[in-house]
Amino acid sequence: MDPDAVAKAFVEHYYSTFDNNRVGLAGLYQEASMLTFEGQKIQGSQNIVAKLTSLPFQQCKHNISTVDCQPSGPASGMLVFVSGNLQLAGEEHALKFSQMICFEKKRKATVSLV
Amino acid sequence: MDPDAVAKAFVEHYYSTFDNNRVGLAGLYQEASMLTFEGQKIQGSQNIVAKLTSLPFQQCKHNISTVDCQPSGPASGMLVFVSGNLQLAGEEHALKFSQMICFEKKRKATVSLV
Repeated sequence: MDPDAVAKAFVEHYYSTFDNNRVGLAGLYQEASMLTFEGQKIQGSQNIVAKLTSLPFQQCKHNISTVDCQPSGPASGMLVFVSGNLQLAGEEHALKFSQMICFEKKRKATVSLV
Repeated sequence: MDPDAVAKAFVEHYYSTFDNNRVGLAGLYQEASMLTFEGQKIQGSQNIVAKLTSLPFQQCKHNISTVDCQPSGPASGMLVFVSGNLQLAGEEHALKFSQMICFEKKRKATVSLV
């Protein structure tokens, strides 16, 4: 499968899970995963999901503008760079966001800035 | 040395080189490096510098807003996520940019969106 298509499919799955079933994101992180969210580093699937479910908004919709990916490391890893808009329920204007996602066989890491 | 301090120092060096001596960026890429620039993938130090020096602006100034980093891979690699503004000479408004930089011992990769 084309790596760009894999990246795009993962990104769609990630944000669809974020928007519709945020606790389900636990399955997309591992114990070694790290999330950097607005400068705060959070490690481990459970802690990451605790952070993401405690954000001060419940309903949201991510609209993806760009997905760029590059191969990374020896084990078919990938670096993915995503940008788009985040629409919060009840808010008139969408927020811009960009997120970087790194897949490796044994770990997954994301750096996000919303 | 603290990894965050290393990342910050590299980012400052990278953009200072970009703004003041763009051809000098050649020393910061290797043959296996890949640049993704607005969706276009460019491989190898020489091709990357050819792309960056052919951008339709000569004088520019990057102002960094955020630098986030995470450890990556077994060989003290790092993923760095940068956001900021790009001021072009003669333009009133700065452009927003974000860039992701990945260091590894044997390769360096960046995905950038300006």
